[in-house]
Amino acid sequence: MIKSGVTAPEGFRASGVACGLKKNGNLDLAMVVSDKTAAAAGIFTANVVKGHSLKWTMEKVKSGAARAVVINSGCANACLGERGDADAASMAAYASGFIGCEPDLVLLGSTGVIGFPLDMKKIKAGIRKAYDSLSYEGGSLASKAIMTTDTYPKEAAGTFMIGDKTVTIGGMAKGSGMIHPNMATMISVITTDIAINPELLKKALKTAADSSFNRISVDGDTSVCDKVIILANGMAGNTVIDKEGPEYDAFLSVLLEVSESLAKMLAKDGEGATKLVEIRVKNCSDRESAHLILNAIAKSPLVKTAIFGQDANWGRIFTAAGYSGAKFDPDKVDIFIGDLLVCRNGTGLCFDEDKAAELLKKDEVVITLDFKDGSIDDRIWTCDFSYDYVRINGSYRS
Amino acid sequence: MIKSGVTAPEGFRASGVACGLKKNGNLDLAMVVSDKTAAAAGIFTANVVKGHSLKWTMEKVKSGAARAVVINSGCANACLGERGDADAASMAAYASGFIGCEPDLVLLGSTGVIGFPLDMKKIKAGIRKAYDSLSYEGGSLASKAIMTTDTYPKEAAGTFMIGDKTVTIGGMAKGSGMIHPNMATMISVITTDIAINPELLKKALKTAADSSFNRISVDGDTSVCDKVIILANGMAGNTVIDKEGPEYDAFLSVLLEVSESLAKMLAKDGEGATKLVEIRVKNCSDRESAHLILNAIAKSPLVKTAIFGQDANWGRIFTAAGYSGAKFDPDKVDIFIGDLLVCRNGTGLCFDEDKAAELLKKDEVVITLDFKDGSIDDRIWTCDFSYDYVRINGSYRS
Repeated sequence: MIKSGVTAPEGFRASGVACGLKKNGNLDLAMVVSDKTAAAAGIFTANVVKGHSLKWTMEKVKSGAARAVVINSGCANACLGERGDADAASMAAYASGFIGCEPDLVLLGSTGVIGFPLDMKKIKAGIRKAYDSLSYEGGSLASKAIMTTDTYPKEAAGTFMIGDKTVTIGGMAKGSGMIHPNMATMISVITTDIAINPELLKKALKTAADSSFNRISVDGDTSVCDKVIILANGMAGNTVIDKEGPEYDAFLSVLLEVSESLAKMLAKDGEGATKLVEIRVKNCSDRESAHLILNAIAKSPLVKTAIFGQDANWGRIFTAAGYSGAKFDPDKVDIFIGDLLVCRNGTGLCFDEDKAAELLKKDEVVITLDFKDGSIDDRIWTCDFSYDYVRINGSYRS
Repeated sequence: MIKSGVTAPEGFRASGVACGLKKNGNLDLAMVVSDKTAAAAGIFTANVVKGHSLKWTMEKVKSGAARAVVINSGCANACLGERGDADAASMAAYASGFIGCEPDLVLLGSTGVIGFPLDMKKIKAGIRKAYDSLSYEGGSLASKAIMTTDTYPKEAAGTFMIGDKTVTIGGMAKGSGMIHPNMATMISVITTDIAINPELLKKALKTAADSSFNRISVDGDTSVCDKVIILANGMAGNTVIDKEGPEYDAFLSVLLEVSESLAKMLAKDGEGATKLVEIRVKNCSDRESAHLILNAIAKSPLVKTAIFGQDANWGRIFTAAGYSGAKFDPDKVDIFIGDLLVCRNGTGLCFDEDKAAELLKKDEVVITLDFKDGSIDDRIWTCDFSYDYVRINGSYRS
């Protein structure tokens, strides 16, 4: 086991402070700073509506370089017209003054309620405080400061060798409602000390996100502020990776592991969730059908409430597959809860209800559909749907 | 006001009885019989998975004629292989023996849990009892017998003149979960004494359903048993309508009214709902975008829980429009809660929160988005998302 989170790799300091954006006094501003300018890449929400801090970051990361990321929780800085853009620019400029870099090298994130402006006095005080408390052990404080309705902070890290150089990848993520492919009310920052060119870094990030962050769903909603950012500062000392090959593959493989652990933590901490649910499809005819089916099941409130109620109501799972828009032969489908076959060739079986209830009581539930119609396997992570989801989201702003 | 429900038109008898399919002893089998063979048409679920009773009805209604409809609640007769098809056929045959018609003229509906076989002994006893209690005032008992998680029966009727002949349209519907375009766990039977040819009857039904039953959403789930059936027995005595024109238009207009009232009752009685929510879009660029936006907002658990919590969190409405897949300029969008403007040109306003809370407290809430981008207006009805939705669906089978 290695040190977790964004300060696990060489040459990254971080901090998390409270500047009063959250009424309850919790940490609400995080800063991550690389000792050297890092190669940078990002992936952003597919939502047509985009927050102002997100727009700043989308624009600036195009250069492929960044020094720092500043993220506030408690306010999304979204839907505020020109004022929102000006506030984002001034947030970056203010932070860059302390760090000693161009404002364009400061990436931003804002998460929280939409339509209320940032309190820039608080933001500036927060940035000053966050800069003063930067440390090489600050990753876990930063991971706490980006939380909104999350019930616990999410951090992960992994390591591998390139020749005699140890390369480390660390990451943090937040988000538990409005979670759905592609991108959710999630923000994730991943740091690494590998030396790699920005194009390959972006490619690796996209590949890793597609099978991790883009494979989780809490409620089918995607937000206006979602992003994953990666900074690679080269301080591991390896020769810069500028083409695909074994070194790139090793990097990608650990990046996948880190992204997948963060993604599963997000799904498991879904608002009000009592369990992590993995939906698997096997032997689908094509990738598009697999996606449609996984998304429909993972989004279905009827499936998710049944799992909350530990009710082996597989008819709802089959029904969701049926309306997903994917074409398949219903008379060929097998459905499993855990390893228990409950429906064979589209026909319900007299299965052991006690065993099903036992399987559904666990913290992690796996549901599998076998379409016997091709060779595509895929999976998505989601969670169940409880009273607490309604409580949390019926009173979020108040 | 006229007599409501499926026995409102001339020459239709109906009944609703309890045959033990529902454990609590409630009514669970409905029969509607026309005195004469009627022109018939139907609209069916788009789900790939289809129940056996539904498949029977889809096949038989192709003839354009029917005498009766038999519907049971408590069991969906779905996902049961050959046995399910055989049970459907035997249900129709048994009923046809009492009615004195070909089995092919008996349409069927089954609604309830998927994957458990029909108890044919109970079904047969129920059919016998239902036949014995048929009456020209039986519509409201029938509407009770098709209920599943509905909290109240749904009936409507309307009337108009063709020359000196009074034409009546009556209908009943059931459904409150798994409700979404196109078709939901809803079943509706509409009767009319108009004389009309089956092709025009089908066309009118499709037109009416598209702007009523296909414009409601409770949870985005659509079931394997959804259908709307219409029977027209000609007993009003008008000359058979065999082309479009003023008489067809008059019929369509009242059919629309009846369908729309039933559809709104379904949305308002959504599982756990505390209010009816009408989402309107104005000045959209095209029909497809309008649909995508309406569906995304009406399905969003975040929007629906906020409305349950009477929280004017319009950012979630805007966000849902943004991820709907429709293209629009976010900087042109106005959003209204009731008649209160909360967001102008994509930018949040300092609106009167007390007035917003007042509007959200009402039984019926209207939300309007103006895209200022074309001339398409459209609307959808949905409901809010409460603790009770989770309670009802976490324990449905148990």
